[in-house]
Amino acid sequence: MSLIVQKYGGSSVADLDKIRFVAEKVKKYWQAGHKLVVVVSAMGKTTDTLLSMAHSICSSPPERELDMLLATGEQVSVALLCMALFDKGVSAISLTGGQAGIITTGMHTKAKIVHIEVSRILRYLEEGKVVVVAGFQGKTANEDITTLGRGGSDTTACALAAALRADFCEIYTDVNGVYTADPRVVPGARKIPYISYDEMSEMANLGAKVLQLRAVDFSQRYGVRVHVRSTFCEEEGTWVEEVSAMEDVKVKAVTHTREVMKVVLLGVPNQPGVAASIFKVLSDFSVFIDMIIQSEGRGTEKDVAFVVTKEDEGKARRAVARLGEIISFREVKFDDSMGKISIVGAGIASDPRIAYRMFSTLARIGANIDMISTSNLRISCLIPRDRVEEAVRALHEEFIGEGEVILNGGS
Amino acid sequence: MSLIVQKYGGSSVADLDKIRFVAEKVKKYWQAGHKLVVVVSAMGKTTDTLLSMAHSICSSPPERELDMLLATGEQVSVALLCMALFDKGVSAISLTGGQAGIITTGMHTKAKIVHIEVSRILRYLEEGKVVVVAGFQGKTANEDITTLGRGGSDTTACALAAALRADFCEIYTDVNGVYTADPRVVPGARKIPYISYDEMSEMANLGAKVLQLRAVDFSQRYGVRVHVRSTFCEEEGTWVEEVSAMEDVKVKAVTHTREVMKVVLLGVPNQPGVAASIFKVLSDFSVFIDMIIQSEGRGTEKDVAFVVTKEDEGKARRAVARLGEIISFREVKFDDSMGKISIVGAGIASDPRIAYRMFSTLARIGANIDMISTSNLRISCLIPRDRVEEAVRALHEEFIGEGEVILNGGS
Repeated sequence: MSLIVQKYGGSSVADLDKIRFVAEKVKKYWQAGHKLVVVVSAMGKTTDTLLSMAHSICSSPPERELDMLLATGEQVSVALLCMALFDKGVSAISLTGGQAGIITTGMHTKAKIVHIEVSRILRYLEEGKVVVVAGFQGKTANEDITTLGRGGSDTTACALAAALRADFCEIYTDVNGVYTADPRVVPGARKIPYISYDEMSEMANLGAKVLQLRAVDFSQRYGVRVHVRSTFCEEEGTWVEEVSAMEDVKVKAVTHTREVMKVVLLGVPNQPGVAASIFKVLSDFSVFIDMIIQSEGRGTEKDVAFVVTKEDEGKARRAVARLGEIISFREVKFDDSMGKISIVGAGIASDPRIAYRMFSTLARIGANIDMISTSNLRISCLIPRDRVEEAVRALHEEFIGEGEVILNGGS
Repeated sequence: MSLIVQKYGGSSVADLDKIRFVAEKVKKYWQAGHKLVVVVSAMGKTTDTLLSMAHSICSSPPERELDMLLATGEQVSVALLCMALFDKGVSAISLTGGQAGIITTGMHTKAKIVHIEVSRILRYLEEGKVVVVAGFQGKTANEDITTLGRGGSDTTACALAAALRADFCEIYTDVNGVYTADPRVVPGARKIPYISYDEMSEMANLGAKVLQLRAVDFSQRYGVRVHVRSTFCEEEGTWVEEVSAMEDVKVKAVTHTREVMKVVLLGVPNQPGVAASIFKVLSDFSVFIDMIIQSEGRGTEKDVAFVVTKEDEGKARRAVARLGEIISFREVKFDDSMGKISIVGAGIASDPRIAYRMFSTLARIGANIDMISTSNLRISCLIPRDRVEEAVRALHEEFIGEGEVILNGGS
């Protein structure tokens, strides 16, 4: 018998029928004798609806009040799921994040978990109850309600799994695992049965929505095995875990995102400390930055380019405006015509042949590379947005192919 | 400068425009320098919507989970009202019932307030903030969320006013006070400027919806002056307070309710303890009973009749079924053709002329009296439902008239 933490996302509890379906799934595990902690998100588009009410009533809603408002979404879900379980004869109890002992920092709307006091959950598990916990939320030491930021329910689940030393953590979502590429773009894309934390971390970083970056980091730090799978089918999904060292470097997946914005600062002073000032301001505005390129200095000037997500465009524009008050630059360009493609796999950067094959493939289809960035786990290229899908297909064929089943690692 | 507790009901915060309107009202008090605690209910029909979801997903939802679910309604309201206040430049902070220090018993869905720990509210008031508190809810010593039962927001407001020693408590609703009769039935009905706790208590007991019975009792016990008034107009409403002793008995109001059900148990054993058994079972099923008549015993048998609200009909039928397993009776009749009218005023029963005038008036219009019950503050008669409105008009004319303005008491 295992202690399992399960997480069901908003699409899995979008209406009462889906909640009944989830209750039926939970019941099977419970009947099999497992100890279960179930983390749920708000129903369907609830969070978006609440957010739009907030922004309609207040031009800049205070973040503490946003948390007070948004936390109700998950609270509704946990109560309804418990009722559905009760109706099926399952003994269950719901807890808000705060009641579950999730203590966070006071950074409203993006709080960090400081500590989880698990005694209450353990007591209910001992009593044979399914413990249903509201995802995405916690409380401060001062009893204020906080939220963990978008996708925070994944973090709640992985953090609870760590604190409870669960056997594993199941992330239920509307896709049945992590794929070698987006199946909507690459029809031959295949499910990856096992992926390492590092690789999953890069994938999340690159915008794969199946598992949040913070949740991956949490799981890695505490050695929580995570199983990403579909709510609506029984088959195995993707296991995220410490994969044993592999002999040869292998490209695990091709990822892409069309929603990027390139920002170029032209004619920045060629002085020490300027780059630091730029990225300090961007960080002050919580702009997430990917790919940075700084040109060779031309006498007293140089250029700095970086890529932000389209989502962060507003913040990036405000940050650049602020930057104009601190340092001088000749011009700023926002380029909205680019997309990003990446290949991901452990040790990629250590084998120069892989970069060569990637660039050749892009050259072959005539996709001009605008920027390049690499880490040990990935190579990303900025290319014209209208070439992105073709590039994904070409790279998938080059590195992954269509036939063979990938069975790296696993424990 | 006063410390004022205000309560806005569900219809006063039914949509974002109404919340903005309430924020504007609150702002005026705040700008005038008053210290304000604002209690709000769930928006419009939110509670009903949540309840119907609960009953659709579970035939008999556990009460702890119902509280978890329902408490979200007020939590949404407090967050949105704070945002609206913030947008108007008012410094405000929202608190759930639990955060406001409202500690209750563990009787889910009908918890009683045990204690209010006001230090957190006082601290925010000192900081010049408007404190917005979720009505209808509290928490147990074990941090479980509880609700106070329907209309509990009135109780929250009056209890906070008592605990904070507020100068007075304003109950904002969609009518502008307590009337001498229902103005929809009696066009000449007038607003009552001052009413005693005892009289208000009887009125609430008789189904006047403007102020909940528990809230009246709370206010009386702690001497909280309550002002019942309309959200949507500026004029004074009705003050509920300790009214100085009056020289002569006066009928203050004529109330009526069409929604009653008469239950008659025929052929109950004429033995000691039988009445006790009957009302024990009704109380176990939480049936609220008004007007009890027990016939003179006829040898081994007697009849018992009582009146319940239509709302409690289901519970009353289940209670009677249970009763059939405990005592024997020949027959039960549910009579759905009756309505109830009452006259209310301090000392009414001490002056027999008043009862005489009431019964004569009913006789004059040919309304047959089926049952009578009296207290020191009221006389109620059960009459055929189709004569109720005519009877209300006749009694209003007999006891209150149309011309004179009532100005009893006041302090």
